[in-house]
Amino acid sequence: MLQGMRLTADKEHIAVVLNRPKYAGNIGSAARCAKNMGVERLMVVSDRDYPQEEIRQMSTHLAADVVDSIVYCRDLGEALSGFHYVVGTTARLGLARGPVMSPRDMAEQVVELSRKNDVALLFGPEDTGLTNEDLRYCQSVVSIPTSERFRSLNLSHAVMILCYEISMAEIGVPERFTPKMASSRETEGMYGHIGALLQEIGFLNPENPEYWMMHIRRLFSRMRLSAREVRIIRGICRQLSWYLHHRG
Amino acid sequence: MLQGMRLTADKEHIAVVLNRPKYAGNIGSAARCAKNMGVERLMVVSDRDYPQEEIRQMSTHLAADVVDSIVYCRDLGEALSGFHYVVGTTARLGLARGPVMSPRDMAEQVVELSRKNDVALLFGPEDTGLTNEDLRYCQSVVSIPTSERFRSLNLSHAVMILCYEISMAEIGVPERFTPKMASSRETEGMYGHIGALLQEIGFLNPENPEYWMMHIRRLFSRMRLSAREVRIIRGICRQLSWYLHHRG
Repeated sequence: MLQGMRLTADKEHIAVVLNRPKYAGNIGSAARCAKNMGVERLMVVSDRDYPQEEIRQMSTHLAADVVDSIVYCRDLGEALSGFHYVVGTTARLGLARGPVMSPRDMAEQVVELSRKNDVALLFGPEDTGLTNEDLRYCQSVVSIPTSERFRSLNLSHAVMILCYEISMAEIGVPERFTPKMASSRETEGMYGHIGALLQEIGFLNPENPEYWMMHIRRLFSRMRLSAREVRIIRGICRQLSWYLHHRG
Repeated sequence: MLQGMRLTADKEHIAVVLNRPKYAGNIGSAARCAKNMGVERLMVVSDRDYPQEEIRQMSTHLAADVVDSIVYCRDLGEALSGFHYVVGTTARLGLARGPVMSPRDMAEQVVELSRKNDVALLFGPEDTGLTNEDLRYCQSVVSIPTSERFRSLNLSHAVMILCYEISMAEIGVPERFTPKMASSRETEGMYGHIGALLQEIGFLNPENPEYWMMHIRRLFSRMRLSAREVRIIRGICRQLSWYLHHRG
């Protein structure tokens, strides 16, 4: 660690995204603790409406501004489309979930990336957490270490730990080259392109096309693709399609 | 951090002590998050009685055992009399409060001390916090860093952060996921395969085929491909070649 090299996160580039929360009170609690840690962007993805009174009771009036500017969205893909880096949270560890990071390692990455990229911290519903399908949007997955005797965290406590770690990590990350990454919209477009092509050539099992696509997503997620690289890959896909249709 | 130096706290020696909490729900939330982090001793100092239903609703049934064994006490001095080390928490920083520690530094101390000493983590009422008089019982004082725009933490969030830091201090540096990477022979074989394919479909400029291949190499180099992933990519190339030659 270099002395005197203090990197601060650009917290305007960091958002807490709650996917289908069950309890309105948890939205308020999340708003409060995010603001405690300097994160003031909150999105809620749901097809429900939530009683504002319950939200405001838990946020307290001091986080009312965060509650007022919550962005509500019906669709997760749409909600995430403007973000360049999506961190998913999970309690369950399974084969399909790949390697997971600790909140501390995540925070180091996010502090760095937030200087040039919009970062979403994504949390699932209180009872079920993020599904494997939700996790496909995530470039990295974080798991908060807990006692084995009681793993299930309250939603706002999970939000608190991630925001707290980001706040702590600001103090000590050495400045490095920060890549400007492709947005979720751009990478999702690329996956659509790759998926269609692999389907066409019969590489994907029609009964479970997601199996190989999951491996491909995981592989590209690690790369932190730039917008330029996404264009190169899509260019290859386009050329392949063209060749397949015009040859012979 | 020395390799192999893992110190575990004796969590039976660590207790969360809530001094005159206002809201019963916060007692339940504190019980829940303490248990999440492996701390199962909770004391409540108050001359009031609290509605058990509200406590249990927030603790969830999974922390009911912690709620059942809460020690209630009327007097703070009496409550703390059996402890060897008392950590006070404060949001306010003032002359009378002396030097304050970060939660992370506190956690390192507490993990070590708890092996031979009973340690209390002491929290004040939601609205006023610990008084200077309360702080006299404390061997050290911790302040959780917050945004200057909103310093007041929910009581259970403060409990969570301290217990989480103790839990993390025990783990020390978490073991990171170390991938088993593909060998150079395997990746070079893959690049040969990709290059031949891109040449065939006319993606590479025949006069300077290395130009795009350099970009592709750079992109894959960042990924630290596993042997398995190299096989997947070569599988896709093979399938493409086959399809190109057998179709039409």
